[in-house]
Amino acid sequence: MAKKPWGGRFSEETDKLVEEFTASVHYDKRLALYDIRGSIAHARMLGKTGIIPKEDAEKIISGLKEIEKEIKEGRFKWRKDLEDVHMNIEAALYEKVGPVAGKLHTARSRNDQVATDVRLFLRDVIDETLRRLKELRKALVVKAKENLEVILPGFTHLQHAQPVLLAHHFMAYYEMFTRDARRFEFVREETNICPLGSAALAGTPFPVDREMVAKELGFKGVTRNSMDAVSDRDFIVSFLAAASLVFVHLSRLSEELILWISPEFGFIDLPDKLCTGSSIMPQKKNPDVAELIRGKTGRIFGNLFTLLTVLKGLPMTYNRDLQEDKEPLFDTIDTLLPSLTLARELIAGLKVNQERMRKACEQGHLTATDLADYLVTKGLPFREAHHIVGRLVAYCEEKGLKLWELPIEKLKEFSTLIEEDVYEWLTLEGSVARRKVVGGTAPEQVKKAISQAEKELEA
Amino acid sequence: MAKKPWGGRFSEETDKLVEEFTASVHYDKRLALYDIRGSIAHARMLGKTGIIPKEDAEKIISGLKEIEKEIKEGRFKWRKDLEDVHMNIEAALYEKVGPVAGKLHTARSRNDQVATDVRLFLRDVIDETLRRLKELRKALVVKAKENLEVILPGFTHLQHAQPVLLAHHFMAYYEMFTRDARRFEFVREETNICPLGSAALAGTPFPVDREMVAKELGFKGVTRNSMDAVSDRDFIVSFLAAASLVFVHLSRLSEELILWISPEFGFIDLPDKLCTGSSIMPQKKNPDVAELIRGKTGRIFGNLFTLLTVLKGLPMTYNRDLQEDKEPLFDTIDTLLPSLTLARELIAGLKVNQERMRKACEQGHLTATDLADYLVTKGLPFREAHHIVGRLVAYCEEKGLKLWELPIEKLKEFSTLIEEDVYEWLTLEGSVARRKVVGGTAPEQVKKAISQAEKELEA
Amino acid sequence: MAKKPWGGRFSEETDKLVEEFTASVHYDKRLALYDIRGSIAHARMLGKTGIIPKEDAEKIISGLKEIEKEIKEGRFKWRKDLEDVHMNIEAALYEKVGPVAGKLHTARSRNDQVATDVRLFLRDVIDETLRRLKELRKALVVKAKENLEVILPGFTHLQHAQPVLLAHHFMAYYEMFTRDARRFEFVREETNICPLGSAALAGTPFPVDREMVAKELGFKGVTRNSMDAVSDRDFIVSFLAAASLVFVHLSRLSEELILWISPEFGFIDLPDKLCTGSSIMPQKKNPDVAELIRGKTGRIFGNLFTLLTVLKGLPMTYNRDLQEDKEPLFDTIDTLLPSLTLARELIAGLKVNQERMRKACEQGHLTATDLADYLVTKGLPFREAHHIVGRLVAYCEEKGLKLWELPIEKLKEFSTLIEEDVYEWLTLEGSVARRKVVGGTAPEQVKKAISQAEKELEA
Amino acid sequence: MAKKPWGGRFSEETDKLVEEFTASVHYDKRLALYDIRGSIAHARMLGKTGIIPKEDAEKIISGLKEIEKEIKEGRFKWRKDLEDVHMNIEAALYEKVGPVAGKLHTARSRNDQVATDVRLFLRDVIDETLRRLKELRKALVVKAKENLEVILPGFTHLQHAQPVLLAHHFMAYYEMFTRDARRFEFVREETNICPLGSAALAGTPFPVDREMVAKELGFKGVTRNSMDAVSDRDFIVSFLAAASLVFVHLSRLSEELILWISPEFGFIDLPDKLCTGSSIMPQKKNPDVAELIRGKTGRIFGNLFTLLTVLKGLPMTYNRDLQEDKEPLFDTIDTLLPSLTLARELIAGLKVNQERMRKACEQGHLTATDLADYLVTKGLPFREAHHIVGRLVAYCEEKGLKLWELPIEKLKEFSTLIEEDVYEWLTLEGSVARRKVVGGTAPEQVKKAISQAEKELEA
Repeated sequence: MAKKPWGGRFSEETDKLVEEFTASVHYDKRLALYDIRGSIAHARMLGKTGIIPKEDAEKIISGLKEIEKEIKEGRFKWRKDLEDVHMNIEAALYEKVGPVAGKLHTARSRNDQVATDVRLFLRDVIDETLRRLKELRKALVVKAKENLEVILPGFTHLQHAQPVLLAHHFMAYYEMFTRDARRFEFVREETNICPLGSAALAGTPFPVDREMVAKELGFKGVTRNSMDAVSDRDFIVSFLAAASLVFVHLSRLSEELILWISPEFGFIDLPDKLCTGSSIMPQKKNPDVAELIRGKTGRIFGNLFTLLTVLKGLPMTYNRDLQEDKEPLFDTIDTLLPSLTLARELIAGLKVNQERMRKACEQGHLTATDLADYLVTKGLPFREAHHIVGRLVAYCEEKGLKLWELPIEKLKEFSTLIEEDVYEWLTLEGSVARRKVVGGTAPEQVKKAISQAEKELEA
Repeated sequence: MAKKPWGGRFSEETDKLVEEFTASVHYDKRLALYDIRGSIAHARMLGKTGIIPKEDAEKIISGLKEIEKEIKEGRFKWRKDLEDVHMNIEAALYEKVGPVAGKLHTARSRNDQVATDVRLFLRDVIDETLRRLKELRKALVVKAKENLEVILPGFTHLQHAQPVLLAHHFMAYYEMFTRDARRFEFVREETNICPLGSAALAGTPFPVDREMVAKELGFKGVTRNSMDAVSDRDFIVSFLAAASLVFVHLSRLSEELILWISPEFGFIDLPDKLCTGSSIMPQKKNPDVAELIRGKTGRIFGNLFTLLTVLKGLPMTYNRDLQEDKEPLFDTIDTLLPSLTLARELIAGLKVNQERMRKACEQGHLTATDLADYLVTKGLPFREAHHIVGRLVAYCEEKGLKLWELPIEKLKEFSTLIEEDVYEWLTLEGSVARRKVVGGTAPEQVKKAISQAEKELEA
Repeated sequence: MAKKPWGGRFSEETDKLVEEFTASVHYDKRLALYDIRGSIAHARMLGKTGIIPKEDAEKIISGLKEIEKEIKEGRFKWRKDLEDVHMNIEAALYEKVGPVAGKLHTARSRNDQVATDVRLFLRDVIDETLRRLKELRKALVVKAKENLEVILPGFTHLQHAQPVLLAHHFMAYYEMFTRDARRFEFVREETNICPLGSAALAGTPFPVDREMVAKELGFKGVTRNSMDAVSDRDFIVSFLAAASLVFVHLSRLSEELILWISPEFGFIDLPDKLCTGSSIMPQKKNPDVAELIRGKTGRIFGNLFTLLTVLKGLPMTYNRDLQEDKEPLFDTIDTLLPSLTLARELIAGLKVNQERMRKACEQGHLTATDLADYLVTKGLPFREAHHIVGRLVAYCEEKGLKLWELPIEKLKEFSTLIEEDVYEWLTLEGSVARRKVVGGTAPEQVKKAISQAEKELEA
Repeated sequence: MAKKPWGGRFSEETDKLVEEFTASVHYDKRLALYDIRGSIAHARMLGKTGIIPKEDAEKIISGLKEIEKEIKEGRFKWRKDLEDVHMNIEAALYEKVGPVAGKLHTARSRNDQVATDVRLFLRDVIDETLRRLKELRKALVVKAKENLEVILPGFTHLQHAQPVLLAHHFMAYYEMFTRDARRFEFVREETNICPLGSAALAGTPFPVDREMVAKELGFKGVTRNSMDAVSDRDFIVSFLAAASLVFVHLSRLSEELILWISPEFGFIDLPDKLCTGSSIMPQKKNPDVAELIRGKTGRIFGNLFTLLTVLKGLPMTYNRDLQEDKEPLFDTIDTLLPSLTLARELIAGLKVNQERMRKACEQGHLTATDLADYLVTKGLPFREAHHIVGRLVAYCEEKGLKLWELPIEKLKEFSTLIEEDVYEWLTLEGSVARRKVVGGTAPEQVKKAISQAEKELEA
């Protein structure tokens, strides 16, 4: 069995460098337990349908279970000259049960086998992703709840725009990661279909029971066209695209944490255990975890583009190029899962500097829009109101004053519509509280959003 | 109104080059009709809720309808110094209805306005995409039905693998484009939510009726967090990712058409009207359309990467970088829609050269796997059977023979299990017919798949 | 001549949609003047070598010059049904000089013609890019010179690290854009080679004088293999890659300007004319130009990826996919050139808030490393010194003190090596001045770097 | 020393998961020997300049050499809790030479240290890349020389265009890889500059001799701005971009090999040792190596985009994101080098099927352009000649004839300019021989190109 499984037709040995170049076992062994699970289901079906004798099927299954145990216990010896995970396992099976091992490959090809393995594997990964997304979303809700009183400047263009609740800010991220969860649920459906029975490309000629295998493996259904099934990598692209969006969100969150912990902002602090220092500057405390998450966004996008490039223009059906689907997938998973967990820890661990946030609110005439809105309620068209307030702000800038520091007489110079009641519109609390539209930053709305989120997370 | 809508605070005029650099009207005017539709719904709601007087709302609406008409009739004058589509329309409104126009911007910001426009626009685009995908899928089913008898070599690694029905081959593409359709339906759901009311970032302080506006505009619901809503571009990324997968499929199809029409393959011909010639070589007939579709895959992937890069690491909420979302989206749409239609025409117009396909089947020992399967039915483990056939193929190669040309005595030298009935396993028709597993290439299965598809397409 | 130039062999008219899909004249007309220049050189050579009669060559040339004039004056009528720029010009030539126009295409194909056009065009673009890069580099040097006294916190991880001169900071960007210039010079060499004479793919059979044409067009040499020459787009990829690095640098610069103008940093202000406001928030002044430059980084990267994807796996020689090279190139140019100019304006226009920078230096124990270095000069291994200062910083943090506020007795508690002279090491000026290594931030070094740069810019 | 080198200021232990997430030793240990080489040069300079006592420098150097030996012999124990390669080596040094080890980090930071390591490492990699490119270019020249007589159809649009020499075809690839070599030489210059002395970001305050270190390490010069130097990754991007172009070329070559070995083309065969088989289809012989090279193009492009994304918008100077530069670089190298070698083996090993190529030339009216050129020599404008031949080809297609099979009378019906001498223009040999322009496919030109290449390769 050490010979290549396809050696019959060949007269020359494979070149050593070629063997190394084409080998995949160093990474696809990660699929081993899924490969075995798929093989057990396949063998059981072969026995049940009489395609091979039941006792052969049983022998094969017990051999596979032994191998499974060895792998789990780290005792299995992987051999690079056996190319890939499938051939490693088959060779081991041969050693355990003899020539009957050769019957396992009846009605199956590596093409449908590997497609099955990846789908089984990815389904589990998606479930784990959903779990970690949930943990992150929970941490955001908890943090929002803790900070219902805290007001900070809402930014656009990294300029102070309007006061918002810190809780509202956290809940914005809750929304993003909730959308991500929905997207992964969709990818899970794309993934959860069984290609076994497609064989090399044309379907197997043996009277297999595809539904039985699919059911045993927990798949929701079977693929509908064998040629498509052996070359379909859409679900992997979908996963990588969904992961890319997660990293859009994580990179935005990271950027904000990095900004907020900078001395200039000083909005938050992070626990030492989530930071690192400098080998040369003794005073440094760096938000490395956030920086790395932001940086790792690059590899996630890169992995997506890797696979898209691989797939472009491939004729039907299986081409060896498709072997290049696994490493970008694995790398994405190994980056995604810890990043989600660490983002959760960052959120859970951050300490809010309420005072600095409050103080920042005093800069930038945050309630200028409220003043314009005030004028609108007095009957002015918004555009005119906006213009008047614009000139008022310019005046304040010149004098170094805040809007609420202007006496009523001065205000009236800009618009006679302004009355004493205007000062109530210029407070931060007033500004926030007035935005009680659905999705707005008013405390009553943010509380509703939090309750709603808590219900979703319980589900 | 020619002055910038935000000019109040500013003392210097905008630099000319800056004006040009930041302007977007040359492309975002494409959203004009959606912008007006959104404004009409917004104005109606402002009137209904009493935020502005009803008669003002009516004046505004009738002004907007006039502008709509002018735009539809191509009479509207776009001005670059007015920055974007929104300001162009507002300025025109001002000219038509006077200062009351300024009331339209009550309880709204360009941030939630443009997000609404794009969502309305994209929803229509998705519907059109789904229509064109359906046309393409129909053409594939029709072509499959026409070619139920045609056998060609199924390829793996661009080597002959096993005989398959041409109809089965077409139906593989049907599967791909059907998955694409499902993906766009999901993106449609992500898109179909109304952000109006989020205002600049914190929610509007006016007592708007968000549900009323959403309903009038046909949205399924309203966004839940104002800060998220004004900076959420996930649905555009999702659209671009779905389009990228369409182009993975289109590029594969194109590659095959290009191969098939090459003199070496000669499997198909394309109508002159879908080909072009050479300015220097008089004999050339080039499959330019297929080549261009394949080539345009690059820009679709590029557009996805563009937007992902734009979004990476942006702090909350709106940043001007987000303006860069539209051109990659528009370019993707303008590439996607005609490509789908032309792919349909290519499929509908191609002429099959059945003979060349048949003749090709004689090369490459296409039924070698069948012979191995035959030996398996005689009780041999598949691996051994595979090895025996491998040696047989090597023998045939050396002698320049086909498998079925070997006399039974010669065959028996390789395995005594081989009997006279083997020849039936070596025919193309036999090979195809035996693969009657679900999703297999047997005529009965392919017919079922076609019927199933026809039902789906009627829905 | 309205008929397709390749129509002889065809029996059907080109489909309307196909015509539109394959047309390129709406963007490649941008190459028109280069196309004419190339054609004039080609015609002159055809006449000189006697391949066509001299008087025919002269007629053609004068016709081309007329067309050139019409194009320059905007009087030329472009027709989409004539596919591309080449055919539009040829058709116009036919109208002007009659059938002799048909002789221009002797010994030439659109394949080598378009490759020539793009190379001529891009050579000019590179020269313009180099000019604008120089302007930007000049602005940086001027700004550095103006700010030789200004100290600000140097950042790593967006945390205060060590004090640096603002001039040093600007000169870091000078280095980046200087590298960019060198890279474009290399791309210019790759570009500046003449492919004319390669014809469709195999070389022309006519006795052309390639060197003569190349010389007239200012090319440095001729391509060496006809098959390569008609499908080589390396120089465009190189240009896009060089542009991507420019945008890496521009996006970093933009990010810093956006940070620095935020209320939290307040390090700089930008002139109104380079900023824009908000349609809803009257107080806003946004650094839109910097944001847009940062955002446009996405499309530059996207364009590079577009072309790489197009080129992947194309067999020899010309394939229609290659038509997709122009739009990403044009879009990159149209983004690159104004971005360079605006970056220059941003640098030239920014006003430094020296006080805010100075004040920021007091936060973050910026001279902690100096203290460690001080201990090293007293004989301590750096690692131990680092550790001692680390504990000192922790102590200061706890007490809310700056390093230089600690009395000498307290300092001595941490290390008996510390003497009174330590305080001189803890000042900002001292820290900066000591870093007088080549490339360091000491004023004397920065002055040298500025002089060196001034010399380079004069060259 | 097990404690973090920056631990002084911190009160909490680093979180386990954080430690793992931020660690890089599992991949950056690959830089170990370069790190040691850099450290030895640094230590020697510290001793020479008296910054540390000479005997300390010697102790450090001998300790480093011991560690170097351990690493080379595989005896070195890497510890993940020590973060990275630098700290692992420093900790080992401490164990060997005691506290004096702490002096090595004088006047140096990890920021300039790692930049130095990567530059040293990459310089070697570039040299190896150039060597392998040369081997590949040699193989192409050898193969060209072997096949000087072989004519095959030159393709455009994957349609037969004009006959070309197979040698000419190979030499086209020679040109591509020669351009690649020039590009890597440029990247080598970008890389070969020493950043040591830049320290953390501001330059070291110690009186180091940067030129001495640079010279010892073989660098051509020193970087000119410390802030730029510690965050400059341009040279890595340049390397990845150059590698991307190599893969554009390799993927085109692979595509052609895959096409050529397909049964439909049958232009070449590949040795068994460079192919693999199928686990299910006994007759298969797949060009896996070429497919994998083509597929790996994806990861190369992906790696380039990974790094570009990482760098986008990073403020000065060092940010932890930059740690993400190494894995895409390493992965690119590990893909590039074997791919070049295997491409060389594919070229060297391929067997040409001269007959199939010849036979293919009979399809597609390959000399139609020659006929048009013939008419041009008789005085017809090219466009008219093209049109006449177009109609002739249409006639031949209809009748199933080749151009040279038409009797002179029939030819004259299309143009009275055609004489008996036309047949000489219609042969393959004649067509090829006439293209004797520089860079053309005529045997005399191709021979010249080969001689020229041989000279270049000797240099």
